[in-house]
This record gives sequence, structure tokens and C-alpha cells, in this order.
Amino acid sequence: MGRWEPNAPGRLERAALDLYIERGFEQTTVAEIAERAGLTERTFFRHYADKREVLFAGAGALRDLLVSAVAGAPDSAAPIDAVAAAVEAAGAVLQERREFSRRRQAVIAANAALQERELIKLATLASALAGALRQRGVPDPAASLTAEAGIAVFKIAFDRWVNDDGQPDFPQLVRESLGELKAVTAGK
Amino acid sequence: MGRWEPNAPGRLERAALDLYIERGFEQTTVAEIAERAGLTERTFFRHYADKREVLFAGAGALRDLLVSAVAGAPDSAAPIDAVAAAVEAAGAVLQERREFSRRRQAVIAANAALQERELIKLATLASALAGALRQRGVPDPAASLTAEAGIAVFKIAFDRWVNDDGQPDFPQLVRESLGELKAVTAGK
Repeated sequence: MGRWEPNAPGRLERAALDLYIERGFEQTTVAEIAERAGLTERTFFRHYADKREVLFAGAGALRDLLVSAVAGAPDSAAPIDAVAAAVEAAGAVLQERREFSRRRQAVIAANAALQERELIKLATLASALAGALRQRGVPDPAASLTAEAGIAVFKIAFDRWVNDDGQPDFPQLVRESLGELKAVTAGK
Repeated sequence: MGRWEPNAPGRLERAALDLYIERGFEQTTVAEIAERAGLTERTFFRHYADKREVLFAGAGALRDLLVSAVAGAPDSAAPIDAVAAAVEAAGAVLQERREFSRRRQAVIAANAALQERELIKLATLASALAGALRQRGVPDPAASLTAEAGIAVFKIAFDRWVNDDGQPDFPQLVRESLGELKAVTAGK
């Protein structure tokens, strides 16, 4: 009890995803996840509030990454370019976790409640991006609209990246999707 | 029992909103809503699955309106213009229900679970718009991105319309927000 377990979050995450894919999210218990990971339930709850949060543990880091990338964009960058740089940076981080992301997405796609939780996550990211733009002096509604545009690009690039084999990498899909958004909003 | 009650949905809706604003959504029961409306619980459940659905009863009609407006746009219309016409048409219908919309929004803003339900509604509308664009032969990812852009415009126009006094009407806010989206995505 209480002793340090090497890479407990990684082991729990892998065990949870394995079980969610094998048995379904609803059918899996925390006890089973801990057992599969060779850890105790107590260790599980030291890292995650519940079995759903294993799938959303990265949301806070993703938000921080987006916000700091917007804050760190050159003063001269247009709002959409600051947001695009942030979404690309997030894409580069996710690129390192492609297999995890694909498996996680398969679990979420199979469960309506998880899809709702994912929508809430995306709405939170859009709010955070809008807040970061306001910090740069971008007024509303431009801040909100640019943030929503950025999250739309993220979402569509993510869907393409996670669902198709042999696709380009995530940052490239972000650039392509942004180019496509610019084209469609321009009426092309 | 079972007899026809004149305008039961309208009376129930008004009673529900009154109570949600007076007491809070969580604190209000279906029995209280029915009593306030001078109707029975049985009549309530003939029209609504539960007290939450009173607030979302219009979502299906809104979706149908968006889809048929996209389908009915001239063949020559660019996807973004078909979507803009649809969102404007939806705005014109909501314009007739401004007081209801403002009161409904106040209830939703006060309750996290209702905000989540609203996000799901918006995601459903985005899917429906994307499907209507595919029916017009718009390929992906353009269909999805245009639909997301349309819902972003709808959301921001709605926020402005519902929260500010003395604002222009909803269809005009839709046009302004779309213009702003075009400007921000163009890097202005």
C-alpha cells in the first residue's frame, strides 16, 4: 500500500483500454483494471477519479498546451494563425500517441455517454482558446469565432488522423483542414 | 383524463420555465409544472418525456428546418451560402420566440447538465447540416467543416442575440457573425 509503483498511470491506462476494447466500457470495473495492471484499486484511485477519467486524463495538459501556444505566438500573428499554431502543436503531441489515440477513439465511438463527455472536453478547449485570444487583445466575437474555428479544425483533423490508415501526420492534417476551412468560408 | 386540453404544450412550457426561473431546474417537479399549468401529470407526459425535454422539444423542428433549407438552396449556392441561408432561416424562426429563448437560456446557463444537453443538441445539428451538404454532393472534409462553421456562427449569433439588449435581430446577427468568421479565417 502506498508504495511507489513504477509508471502506474501508464499501466492503468493500458489495462483500462485493453479491457474497454475487449469487454466494453460499461462492463469493465475498476477492480478489473487494477488487477490487469498488477496494481491495487487504491493505486487506481490515487491517479483517476473513476474509470471514465482514465480516458480524459490528458485534457488538462492539452488545454494548457493550447493556451500557452496561443500566448506564445508572435505579436504580429493574426488570431487564426495563433490558433492554428496551437492546434498544430497539440497535433504534434498527439502524433506521439497515435496508437493510444486510435484505441481511445474506438472506445468513445462505442459509447454515447463518452461521446458526450468528449463534446464537453472540446467545448472546454474552445473556451480556453477564446480566453487566450482575449488575453492577446482579440475582441469578441472574433475571439470566440476564431476559437470555434480552431476546434472545428482540430476535430476534423483528428477524425481523419484517427480513422484512416496511411494518412499524413496530424500536424499536416491540421494545416490541410485549416486550408479547407479557409476555402469553404470564402465560398469556394 | 385524456380530454383535449387547449394549447397544453404551450401552457406546460410556460409553467415549466416560470418554475425553473423561480426555484431552479433541479428543485422543480413535473407535478408542480402540471399544477401551475392547470393540467395533470398525465397530460405532461403525453407531451414530454421528462422535465428536461420541455427545454429541448424544439430541437427536432430546428434540425428539420436546417436540413430542408440546405436542401432547398439553389444548385449554384456555395456550401457556406447554403448553410448560411439555413442558419438565417432558423434565426428568423427563433426571432419570433425571443422572450422564450432568453428565459430558456437563463435556465440552461444555471445548470451544468443542461449545458451538456445543449452541446449535444448543437453537435446533432452540425451532423444534420453535414449530412444535408453531402446530399448536395459536397465531399468531406468540406461538408463537415462547413457544417461546423455554420454551427459556430449560429452559436455566437445566438449568444449575442440572447444576452444583449438592443441588439439587431437574429438573422442580421447571423450575417454579421458569418462575415466575422470569413474575416478571421482569412487572417484578418
